[in-house]
Amino acid sequence: MSSLREECGVFGIWSPNKNGVARQAYYGLYALQHRGQESCGIVVNDEGKFRSFVDAGIVNDVFTSAVMENLGEGNMAIGHVRYGTAGAAGRTNAQPIVVNHVKGRMALANNGSLVNYYELREELELEGKIFHTTGDCEIISYIITKERLKTTTIEEAISRAMDRLVGAYSLVILTPGKMIAVRDPKGFRPLCCGKTEDGSLVVASESCALDAVGAAFERDLQPGEIFIVDEKGPRSNLEHGGKQSCSACVFEYIYFARPDSVIDGASVHEARLRAGAFLALEHPVQADVVVGVPDSGLDAALGFARQSGIPYGLGFIKNKYIGRTFILPGQNVREDKVRIKLNPVSANVKGKRVVLIDDSIIRGTTSARIVKLLREIGATEVHMRISSPPFLNPCYYGTDIESKDALIACKHSIEEIQKIIGVDSLGYLGLDSVKKIAITNPDISFCTACFDGQYPTEEPKITAKHKFESKIEERE
Amino acid sequence: MSSLREECGVFGIWSPNKNGVARQAYYGLYALQHRGQESCGIVVNDEGKFRSFVDAGIVNDVFTSAVMENLGEGNMAIGHVRYGTAGAAGRTNAQPIVVNHVKGRMALANNGSLVNYYELREELELEGKIFHTTGDCEIISYIITKERLKTTTIEEAISRAMDRLVGAYSLVILTPGKMIAVRDPKGFRPLCCGKTEDGSLVVASESCALDAVGAAFERDLQPGEIFIVDEKGPRSNLEHGGKQSCSACVFEYIYFARPDSVIDGASVHEARLRAGAFLALEHPVQADVVVGVPDSGLDAALGFARQSGIPYGLGFIKNKYIGRTFILPGQNVREDKVRIKLNPVSANVKGKRVVLIDDSIIRGTTSARIVKLLREIGATEVHMRISSPPFLNPCYYGTDIESKDALIACKHSIEEIQKIIGVDSLGYLGLDSVKKIAITNPDISFCTACFDGQYPTEEPKITAKHKFESKIEERE
Amino acid sequence: MSSLREECGVFGIWSPNKNGVARQAYYGLYALQHRGQESCGIVVNDEGKFRSFVDAGIVNDVFTSAVMENLGEGNMAIGHVRYGTAGAAGRTNAQPIVVNHVKGRMALANNGSLVNYYELREELELEGKIFHTTGDCEIISYIITKERLKTTTIEEAISRAMDRLVGAYSLVILTPGKMIAVRDPKGFRPLCCGKTEDGSLVVASESCALDAVGAAFERDLQPGEIFIVDEKGPRSNLEHGGKQSCSACVFEYIYFARPDSVIDGASVHEARLRAGAFLALEHPVQADVVVGVPDSGLDAALGFARQSGIPYGLGFIKNKYIGRTFILPGQNVREDKVRIKLNPVSANVKGKRVVLIDDSIIRGTTSARIVKLLREIGATEVHMRISSPPFLNPCYYGTDIESKDALIACKHSIEEIQKIIGVDSLGYLGLDSVKKIAITNPDISFCTACFDGQYPTEEPKITAKHKFESKIEERE
Amino acid sequence: MSSLREECGVFGIWSPNKNGVARQAYYGLYALQHRGQESCGIVVNDEGKFRSFVDAGIVNDVFTSAVMENLGEGNMAIGHVRYGTAGAAGRTNAQPIVVNHVKGRMALANNGSLVNYYELREELELEGKIFHTTGDCEIISYIITKERLKTTTIEEAISRAMDRLVGAYSLVILTPGKMIAVRDPKGFRPLCCGKTEDGSLVVASESCALDAVGAAFERDLQPGEIFIVDEKGPRSNLEHGGKQSCSACVFEYIYFARPDSVIDGASVHEARLRAGAFLALEHPVQADVVVGVPDSGLDAALGFARQSGIPYGLGFIKNKYIGRTFILPGQNVREDKVRIKLNPVSANVKGKRVVLIDDSIIRGTTSARIVKLLREIGATEVHMRISSPPFLNPCYYGTDIESKDALIACKHSIEEIQKIIGVDSLGYLGLDSVKKIAITNPDISFCTACFDGQYPTEEPKITAKHKFESKIEERE
Repeated sequence: MSSLREECGVFGIWSPNKNGVARQAYYGLYALQHRGQESCGIVVNDEGKFRSFVDAGIVNDVFTSAVMENLGEGNMAIGHVRYGTAGAAGRTNAQPIVVNHVKGRMALANNGSLVNYYELREELELEGKIFHTTGDCEIISYIITKERLKTTTIEEAISRAMDRLVGAYSLVILTPGKMIAVRDPKGFRPLCCGKTEDGSLVVASESCALDAVGAAFERDLQPGEIFIVDEKGPRSNLEHGGKQSCSACVFEYIYFARPDSVIDGASVHEARLRAGAFLALEHPVQADVVVGVPDSGLDAALGFARQSGIPYGLGFIKNKYIGRTFILPGQNVREDKVRIKLNPVSANVKGKRVVLIDDSIIRGTTSARIVKLLREIGATEVHMRISSPPFLNPCYYGTDIESKDALIACKHSIEEIQKIIGVDSLGYLGLDSVKKIAITNPDISFCTACFDGQYPTEEPKITAKHKFESKIEERE
Repeated sequence: MSSLREECGVFGIWSPNKNGVARQAYYGLYALQHRGQESCGIVVNDEGKFRSFVDAGIVNDVFTSAVMENLGEGNMAIGHVRYGTAGAAGRTNAQPIVVNHVKGRMALANNGSLVNYYELREELELEGKIFHTTGDCEIISYIITKERLKTTTIEEAISRAMDRLVGAYSLVILTPGKMIAVRDPKGFRPLCCGKTEDGSLVVASESCALDAVGAAFERDLQPGEIFIVDEKGPRSNLEHGGKQSCSACVFEYIYFARPDSVIDGASVHEARLRAGAFLALEHPVQADVVVGVPDSGLDAALGFARQSGIPYGLGFIKNKYIGRTFILPGQNVREDKVRIKLNPVSANVKGKRVVLIDDSIIRGTTSARIVKLLREIGATEVHMRISSPPFLNPCYYGTDIESKDALIACKHSIEEIQKIIGVDSLGYLGLDSVKKIAITNPDISFCTACFDGQYPTEEPKITAKHKFESKIEERE
Repeated sequence: MSSLREECGVFGIWSPNKNGVARQAYYGLYALQHRGQESCGIVVNDEGKFRSFVDAGIVNDVFTSAVMENLGEGNMAIGHVRYGTAGAAGRTNAQPIVVNHVKGRMALANNGSLVNYYELREELELEGKIFHTTGDCEIISYIITKERLKTTTIEEAISRAMDRLVGAYSLVILTPGKMIAVRDPKGFRPLCCGKTEDGSLVVASESCALDAVGAAFERDLQPGEIFIVDEKGPRSNLEHGGKQSCSACVFEYIYFARPDSVIDGASVHEARLRAGAFLALEHPVQADVVVGVPDSGLDAALGFARQSGIPYGLGFIKNKYIGRTFILPGQNVREDKVRIKLNPVSANVKGKRVVLIDDSIIRGTTSARIVKLLREIGATEVHMRISSPPFLNPCYYGTDIESKDALIACKHSIEEIQKIIGVDSLGYLGLDSVKKIAITNPDISFCTACFDGQYPTEEPKITAKHKFESKIEERE
Repeated sequence: MSSLREECGVFGIWSPNKNGVARQAYYGLYALQHRGQESCGIVVNDEGKFRSFVDAGIVNDVFTSAVMENLGEGNMAIGHVRYGTAGAAGRTNAQPIVVNHVKGRMALANNGSLVNYYELREELELEGKIFHTTGDCEIISYIITKERLKTTTIEEAISRAMDRLVGAYSLVILTPGKMIAVRDPKGFRPLCCGKTEDGSLVVASESCALDAVGAAFERDLQPGEIFIVDEKGPRSNLEHGGKQSCSACVFEYIYFARPDSVIDGASVHEARLRAGAFLALEHPVQADVVVGVPDSGLDAALGFARQSGIPYGLGFIKNKYIGRTFILPGQNVREDKVRIKLNPVSANVKGKRVVLIDDSIIRGTTSARIVKLLREIGATEVHMRISSPPFLNPCYYGTDIESKDALIACKHSIEEIQKIIGVDSLGYLGLDSVKKIAITNPDISFCTACFDGQYPTEEPKITAKHKFESKIEERE
């Protein structure tokens, strides 16, 4: 129920036999839909000819039969799902983007966020470059293109470009002859690859997308890896790997990823069960039922229930019929929105002491509304447990955590928050524990900057605010 | 995951202050969306003027801002969600229908199915009546209209019409000055009423729709009740009640209704927990994890787990991003469809003996596919438990149970089915137990005809097949 | 530029070889689009199975590739274009309608208007009939169905039904095995038939639709003719013909029909040339250029120019890019609407004495606006000539002439109108002349009731106003 | 009826009072719709914030109420209509484009074609620039941006950029604070400006768009003029004017422009009348009627008729109900397409010797089809007269004249063409005459390269074919 937003999901496929790459991309994006619902896109590469369609909306609405037919067949495809602003404007930054440069055509899609976006953009602008979007992809295209002028192959250019990019990026790229996937050296965002029975090679943000296209999971891409596929087969450039310590985003496990995905060797579902178990150990309480806020709080609730011995119960029904956003005028719309999406199951709550598990608290307004729903239906006590530490710092790596001003934990003590959202007790997962929820391979360590302010990279020197304020005078 | 289809959900609202009846109908239908996704409609009554919109699609897609604006304000509204055939054809039988008759205008929406549809239609046709649809609503309109010629009030006409109607119907009706709700004397389909804080009176197929519009649940309509609301306030005609024994559909608890609804005094969620518990008692098994097939198998799985002591686990992730139906050409589409909708959570299944709970088996093909998914991911044993008895008979009361030919249980023994779907063991809920899953008020008894063939009404004398075969010669 | 509206255009095709009847209906309706732009529909009869699609909008927008594909192939089809209210509501009365009655299925589409609509409707309502629409088609369906109970064939039923129908109707009807076209005994509205090279038989409101489907014009249907086509070939029932004097609508020639159509033996284009010539003879004037208001005034302008010897000039450019109606908020929209649709050609008007020809004046507001455009661009004099007599009476036969209150000629003298619309002189075509504009076969005489009040049938006894006022009390 | 295509129409408005600039742009583009029907777009500048919407389709379909509402109010707007490829792909090159560069935001729309497109693109690519489109606008943006780094104002940058651009361009540009319009030094494409009563300044491709927004025509932009509007009022940079001889496209008068437009001082309608008169003088013939092919042949037909004394007649009715393109499968579609769009008026043709006037012959197939229609309807002779000389050379300045291979006049003599299209005689307008059809101000001379091969600029050194062939090897 968190209102956090992740910027994207990416998918790529290379097929030896031109068999349904657009359809596979469709399935893959459909499986990644939870990573972004505002816009989506697919680019098909048919022996060097690119056909592309991007639009605002969810995969199922955007990719109609007619659109799929227009995309046609090809030997490679990449796709993208993205959160973004509503309405027609959503198209502007939709991905993948297709650009033409000195060596032909290139399509890119990205999950992540560059820390040095504004430095790079300023540098490029001063060289006379123009920008159609405000997204990282266009910056990355330029940096690659600059290097491409000096290199023999596109993969060399990408490798050199990576020296210029600071921050989080999981990229899929199509050139006329190659599909290339790139994971940043810190490994902020997940990226994995697999293989289908008919020999197609697939990359995706999460393993659930491999499952969706019938591909067997092969492995996660290593932090810093450049994974290249063409008719000569797959190969990797690992020179950017291992130089920097890894900093995978722990919030992928807590909230972003789908429970059936396995990321860097750890099951997302199990990580959430473990988070719930840690919570039960750290913040025990006497209660009659443990309920989770759908969908991301459910697994942690189950983990809490198992550890505590308090029965797990279905607390809410979430309406799953999501279509085009329907915004109704009127004063009580925000309240209505929670009410029509979530309905408490009275039988499990009435007259009971309830442990309520959610993954995070951002502003506190949604939490307060949910607690109120439980009290109205007859809960005698509500004890809230949060399967992550309090948010105290902005994220520069692709999570849309709003400025400190909006974060309730920056402005209020636990006791105050407890009062604001109306619960009898409140407990957050400890910082030590959150680092232990996912047992991944030993080389993976986590970024927890949003909790502890320990940023694994430099912090942005130029921010959007700075940038545009300095520019306003010279505008005409 | 059952492929059973219920014909509809209905909603009605009467407001003393013309405040948002169309919007409330929208919210109500959105909450009832699980009862029918193929078409939907709303009719607003603005002091005798009716404005209507019906179309193929889900509520969220059909009722755009522009459509809502056109519906405007009014003092009453009724709405309907319906399963139906795909595409443009879906409009023909969409409800509510609006008809004009000798006493003005009337709008109707229905959940149910008439047993004597063809007798009535033949009778009406021989009187020179014409039909725009093939639905019950039009038949019912005619029967009411015939009686209306002889009565002073519409409610008298409805009461007299009920003597002619055999079968299941939960009706909402708008006349220029009244909103009327009717539940058939056997109480096959649910219908309840509630009240909002601002004094609006609401009727709906399920209580979850009352919750969605902020209405407090008041009571279920009694079998045979005619509930009338106008400016004189609410009142009921109960003369059709109590004469016949009640026969509420038990499948509402097993599959159709939303778990957060309370029907005839029994929580749907609790009924499913109880079904799971009975299953555990009747068909015990040694296993490591209990998983349910989303969404309707989840509660029974939890009930089985609690009773058996075997841990409950998340077995599958169901993709919830449902939009316009996307039908892809190609041979493996059926398999793809299960795979892209359901993905097993490997961490909970791999190397384990799994108890798999589903609500029913119709043809067996979907079950077989799901079992295969579990085996592929590494389940060592799969024990299937079904939270209802085997389907052996067609339903004449609104459930789309196909002919006996399609029902696997009519053609195969338990052992054969076990083999066909590939499980290590298979157990169905007993007929005695299914009658005990919902502890409702003592006057409610259940229809279990689909399991035991004990039809609570006469069976249809004329069927569609008979009807149209006899007619074909005289056609020109 | 008249704001008169005709109710419809109809089209029907029977093909011996199931070859593209839906596509032919599409082409036919596209050619008849000028007779109604608000809604349209096609019904295909595929060996007794009917597939139908109707919607608000023009042919080109409603019948997308997907819709055409759904309609599929068949051996017969009928179609309809209609004016109507905007938006979703437009669907309710859209035609053709498909109904089921005692002898199977029937589809109907109509151009015309019944004088005794309300008497028939009252009669039917008192028999317990219900109505889904407010259109003539449904009344006609009922009357046919009533008779059908007593007859062996559908054509007998239609013949008997015609004894009950008073007013204007040009009908196309599909039954499971036949296509039938009917022209009322007065012949108010046009209806003709033709044949394609591959043996398909076609009926249409105007001959231009025959041309559009490559059918050779055969003949106009006679007033009162029932034209039946089935596998036995075409045949006619003429018993209703010749009993009544014919009263073809003269306004078809003046305004409704397309210039390239030939109706009852007379070219529409030539009739307009003649109207212009009569005008020049009756209301001569000294001037420099004759211009017509597009599109319907152009031919009369040419006729005026030829007769008078004053040069014909292009006075206005009419924007032809018509799509979905775009209604902009704001005060000057009406003015904008004329301005963006019509633009004067300065070269032909500036500094000149202009004769301006239009087909009619209804309220006078549009005429005043057009005259203002000419004056602004520099016309020194504007002499208006109208190619029909003044409208003084309502039409009961399918022309949407508003009540007398709205007709400028009912409230003002010629001199006053001249002043209101701002012209230097004004002349209407004489009543004697209008009867002579079309040289048709000698059996055709014209209805000129809107000019002279000589109604060729009884006048309506019950009007909508009367009907609904009398009913309001009994409504509930 | 020509199948020639012009690339675009542009529109711009600057308003002192933020009153309806998007609506005005809508009206302006609606009036320019004949210049391009495949895509359209509007950008609104609201005090430095740009809101944009572009899509495939005609103005009336693309700009729905919802889209217009999103565009909102602003103090400036530019718009564009464009021909282009069908379907979703049409979006890629749709204009205006919005780019960000070193000095902020910029929106551009263009009518024309650069001769040195590929040289400039190669140069830019070698500097590491990337391209999202294949259109001139993006090239022009880059060139302006390069110069912008060295200049104080945007107008200086534009002026310097013009030294680099060879070919035809009529540009409208928005910067955060200015609206700028530019006409290339040769004046290939038209561009004029006007003023509304409320002080808004308007630029448009044709004067008919000024009329549509109620703006009084002020003057044509001079070849080479940079016209700048901001809060300081309008001003011009004329340094590029007068250095080169003017070469306005004569085909604007013959075919592209709307007859009610006045371009460079000459009425388009009068130019066509004159073309017809010249034709009558150069190629006299004995005949009974002169008819034009709608719409562009009508005026020349009138001119021919006046000069020759042969009566002018309405030859064809053109169906004006144009919506989304509807492409039907099947063999005879091309023939159908002419037939359903054009229908001959039998009364004017039957038994007559017909002079048929069209503006051009490209391939000859459409002409042959039209002649066949006339013969089928009974024309005894058909004498074709073309109001332009034969096309013999490709156009590099924005007219989509296909390669020589497709031009019938390149491969066949007049006699052969006469035979191919089936006419009794054929006459083209002479080259000397075509230069005299428009009496403009004495500084305007015409480009007639498509007729005589005298190109007013260098010819392209690099063509698309050359460009892509040379590149294919280095692609990867």
